[in-house]
Amino acid sequence: MVSPRVDQPAMDHRGRQQRLRSILPARRLDALLVTHLPNILYLCGFSGSAGALVLTDAGSFFFTDGRYTAQARAEVHGPRLVIARKPPLAAAADWLTNRQGKRAGRRLPHFRAGIEAEHLTVAARNRFATGLPSNFRLLETPALVESARMLKDAQEIQLLRAAVQLGAGLFERALEAIRPGVRETQVAAQIEYAAREAGAQAMSFPTIIASGKRSSLPHGRASRAAVPARGFVVCDFGVILDDYCSDMTRTVYVGRPSSEERSAYQAVKEAQRAAVEAVRPGIRVDEVDRAARKSLRNSGLAKYFTHSTGHGVGLEIHEAPRIGAGQSEILRPGMVITIEPGVYFPGRWGLRIEDMVLVTERGCEVLTPTSKELVEI
Amino acid sequence: MVSPRVDQPAMDHRGRQQRLRSILPARRLDALLVTHLPNILYLCGFSGSAGALVLTDAGSFFFTDGRYTAQARAEVHGPRLVIARKPPLAAAADWLTNRQGKRAGRRLPHFRAGIEAEHLTVAARNRFATGLPSNFRLLETPALVESARMLKDAQEIQLLRAAVQLGAGLFERALEAIRPGVRETQVAAQIEYAAREAGAQAMSFPTIIASGKRSSLPHGRASRAAVPARGFVVCDFGVILDDYCSDMTRTVYVGRPSSEERSAYQAVKEAQRAAVEAVRPGIRVDEVDRAARKSLRNSGLAKYFTHSTGHGVGLEIHEAPRIGAGQSEILRPGMVITIEPGVYFPGRWGLRIEDMVLVTERGCEVLTPTSKELVEI
Repeated sequence: MVSPRVDQPAMDHRGRQQRLRSILPARRLDALLVTHLPNILYLCGFSGSAGALVLTDAGSFFFTDGRYTAQARAEVHGPRLVIARKPPLAAAADWLTNRQGKRAGRRLPHFRAGIEAEHLTVAARNRFATGLPSNFRLLETPALVESARMLKDAQEIQLLRAAVQLGAGLFERALEAIRPGVRETQVAAQIEYAAREAGAQAMSFPTIIASGKRSSLPHGRASRAAVPARGFVVCDFGVILDDYCSDMTRTVYVGRPSSEERSAYQAVKEAQRAAVEAVRPGIRVDEVDRAARKSLRNSGLAKYFTHSTGHGVGLEIHEAPRIGAGQSEILRPGMVITIEPGVYFPGRWGLRIEDMVLVTERGCEVLTPTSKELVEI
Repeated sequence: MVSPRVDQPAMDHRGRQQRLRSILPARRLDALLVTHLPNILYLCGFSGSAGALVLTDAGSFFFTDGRYTAQARAEVHGPRLVIARKPPLAAAADWLTNRQGKRAGRRLPHFRAGIEAEHLTVAARNRFATGLPSNFRLLETPALVESARMLKDAQEIQLLRAAVQLGAGLFERALEAIRPGVRETQVAAQIEYAAREAGAQAMSFPTIIASGKRSSLPHGRASRAAVPARGFVVCDFGVILDDYCSDMTRTVYVGRPSSEERSAYQAVKEAQRAAVEAVRPGIRVDEVDRAARKSLRNSGLAKYFTHSTGHGVGLEIHEAPRIGAGQSEILRPGMVITIEPGVYFPGRWGLRIEDMVLVTERGCEVLTPTSKELVEI
């Protein structure tokens, strides 16, 4: 994550900063304080764990501490770099106090700084505010950077495709590893080892291998439980490659499924297809969610689908938009989302099928290349 | 992470809740809202990713959503369980509105609820506050649960020992894997595979394998860079086993070190020893930090030690206390901390040595069993 990747064209960091800065006046902001690390990575390229980015109409400024001197110099594109002895947020407050709130030497009546209210903690906000002069106003801004991040540019889509390809290849390793008696963590170990060998920076979330009764847990992280002689095994995993995440789920069966299990699998597969078919520019994301639920209602399984249909994927494994009931975001070309309906019968079994999907000009493209036919092991 | 671990004695969840509830009156709190997931895990056993715990003098109440029904029933000990259709925080606000703020049917003039200001975001706090009646006061509380978590009980220490042992065993795999030309991610792959095979839930943080010039990056996560023919390789890694984290660093040398490199290694090793020797009950944590710096000053290297000396470890890889300059926490028996001085010459090389240390009644015990002699590969 740390090493600059010289073999790739540079990301459009300066353009991203410029576009953000250009919308500040309309929001009556003199500055935007960016503290959410994935937003910092998106805007200026810094991949470390301590930093604060301040965008103003006079330019961008990035604050980090001495541990990240070399890394910041190598990675940060655009902002002026400030290596501080204080924590980055305190350094940003000092800097704003000294340099801003004045224009041409004159103190402004008000200096309006936006904060990322969905990320900044109450305590950090208060510490930050304490350091500022009385003419500063901290405004809680909506997710401005997240909104920009929803629309992936051509280079981001290329990186997401590469991550999806690497991730999909790991499913083969899961198929080789899944056998009755093998621990779920051993299956995860095979997947994760192959991911690392292929150059992944990390898994994009804790690998889910949920076998037998544990398949009824939508978030059944691989445990030391052994794969039983018979039952579903939900495999939900992804990688981070060049900072971009992949996410996929396939559910396989060890042994021969009952007709109930087989028809539930077909119903989820059909619901997943119906939701993918609903994906196109201009429609609200909750219509996609509704398409999955409507399909499952046909087979009487809708009430066992207990989570939302999907989410955006990019620098974070879960990002905007959320594909769920009541969500009003409009799909636009360049969005990359998951479509992942599932059904869960508590204490018995469950299953889920998930692809990553790119919204295109005319509809969508399923990025995940893996077959969705039920594999029996 | 999800499966209940039946082979272990139950954690003292009820006692932890009771102790927290007992300190609320002294802080003039009618309730404490716990939203930080590791604090929730500590207090009631829930390991999922969506939940809110409310402690009141009338008892404890835990809110989660439908995805976690089965998991919450299996894991949560103590609180009354509320499976809500809303997000947990909104459900907690509804519940507080309906049940609290009244006593014997009479509305209290004020109902004072503490929030975890270091964790709750500004936006979440506002959403939560919006749902509450006007007689509610939200108070920003210091890190009450984190304070309790600093002192590990006997069972926690046992689990930390097991995690440290598993982690230490992985260093052997690193030694086998580190060769000139091998990618850092391949070394990480070996370590992480062995961790999974041995039953680890996950790594406790992104594995750092920083070779050659990259060893000068204190946070040099394993990259696709190849280990050079000659130079230091910093190996900093840990596992999560039964929810508890390990953390260790050893720095090895590929080839033959120069006398400058060799003496820097000895200086860091000596500084690490000096800091460990300073660890005992009753002293301030910054004295431990000072001991490491003082030792490095003797060899003129103090200014290259650009981070703090260590941190607490437990359910989180970084938790209280922080072992750094100006930190006033007093060491007490049952604290488990890291001691990890290092020196970094930007663009050239760096090294770090780290153990986990348990504060005992009379001094301390180094938990990490691994030799600190310089290994040349």
